Amino acid sequence: MAADAPERDWSAAEAEIMEATYRALLEHGYAGLSISRIAAELGKSKAAIYYHYDAKDELLATFLEFAVDRFEATVATETGDEPTADLEHVIEKLLPLQPDEEQRQLQAVLVELRSQAVTNEVFREQFTRIDDRLAAAIRDIVERGIDEGTFRDVDPSRVAEHVLATVNGAMYARATTDRESAAAATRVSLASYIDSELRRHP
Amino acid sequence: MAADAPERDWSAAEAEIMEATYRALLEHGYAGLSISRIAAELGKSKAAIYYHYDAKDELLATFLEFAVDRFEATVATETGDEPTADLEHVIEKLLPLQPDEEQRQLQAVLVELRSQAVTNEVFREQFTRIDDRLAAAIRDIVERGIDEGTFRDVDPSRVAEHVLATVNGAMYARATTDRESAAAATRVSLASYIDSELRRHP
Repeated sequence: MAADAPERDWSAAEAEIMEATYRALLEHGYAGLSISRIAAELGKSKAAIYYHYDAKDELLATFLEFAVDRFEATVATETGDEPTADLEHVIEKLLPLQPDEEQRQLQAVLVELRSQAVTNEVFREQFTRIDDRLAAAIRDIVERGIDEGTFRDVDPSRVAEHVLATVNGAMYARATTDRESAAAATRVSLASYIDSELRRHP
Repeated sequence: MAADAPERDWSAAEAEIMEATYRALLEHGYAGLSISRIAAELGKSKAAIYYHYDAKDELLATFLEFAVDRFEATVATETGDEPTADLEHVIEKLLPLQPDEEQRQLQAVLVELRSQAVTNEVFREQFTRIDDRLAAAIRDIVERGIDEGTFRDVDPSRVAEHVLATVNGAMYARATTDRESAAAATRVSLASYIDSELRRHP
């Protein structure tokens, strides 16, 4: 985990609200989300939510932080042995080759939330931090690969930004077009990019 | 130009409405756009717009077609001599290294319009066609480079999808985060990708 991106401690009450927000977002999308619907998923009153969050946007900004914390925790658990496999694992997490319905819904919701960042400063700060943290997670793996001698001596930040932009772009296109094969083609090309940029060929 | 993506003939009246829509979008953003404001930019009555388009979304879908036609026409005029330079030219058009204020505004508006495609079928079809046409424009250059012997014998579609995803992702991030240096890093890495994937090294 990058030293500049500490995970926050989530109280049980907060984590429950975040899980309820996640379910409500999947069910109703961004446009249909309301504190009432989150409360319904939570099985508690709206007051139980307003005790923690003043407004829907504040709750959603916090939800994004929660989602990235969970993503990083999963990545930290599931990676660590082999930099090439770890990089592929992170890419598969961010841009699944064959997303199930829940993953598709989540990515659609993330695109809707992210478009708010064009005009909403709170969302913009949140997505800035999200991309910072995702780029750091990729960069850490590349740096580890270089240290271990698996990868060539490339600029880890440059590679991390490339992978992140490509994955974000393909995810964005998947949520906003019917070009199903484009994401698959991008996954193949990313694997090729990683191979030609990073791998030491004996 | 790809054979399956013919440009449409735009009447002078339609082109004027499209230019007015462009100016209104830059000034007011997607959320602030209205037929009244487009009419004000046009210097005509709202009826002059409704004569051509039934609703704002239909007009905006047409505007996206107009924007891609213009993009393709510009690319067709400004490229054609040298595949590597042509590819860099298209990338600079899609993801300017140092965007001016108008280019930033346009990209922000495109992100807002594109997020509508998550739930709106008309926008989704339009962005599917846009990405099809952009990918075809890139693929055509790669194919030309292979035919001429400048590029290696790669899969042109795969490379085109990679470049498009990377450019779209970096443009998307530029419009939704404050990570200014990320787009520049991605441009450098794209140049490196093109060099290592495509160029024949003597």
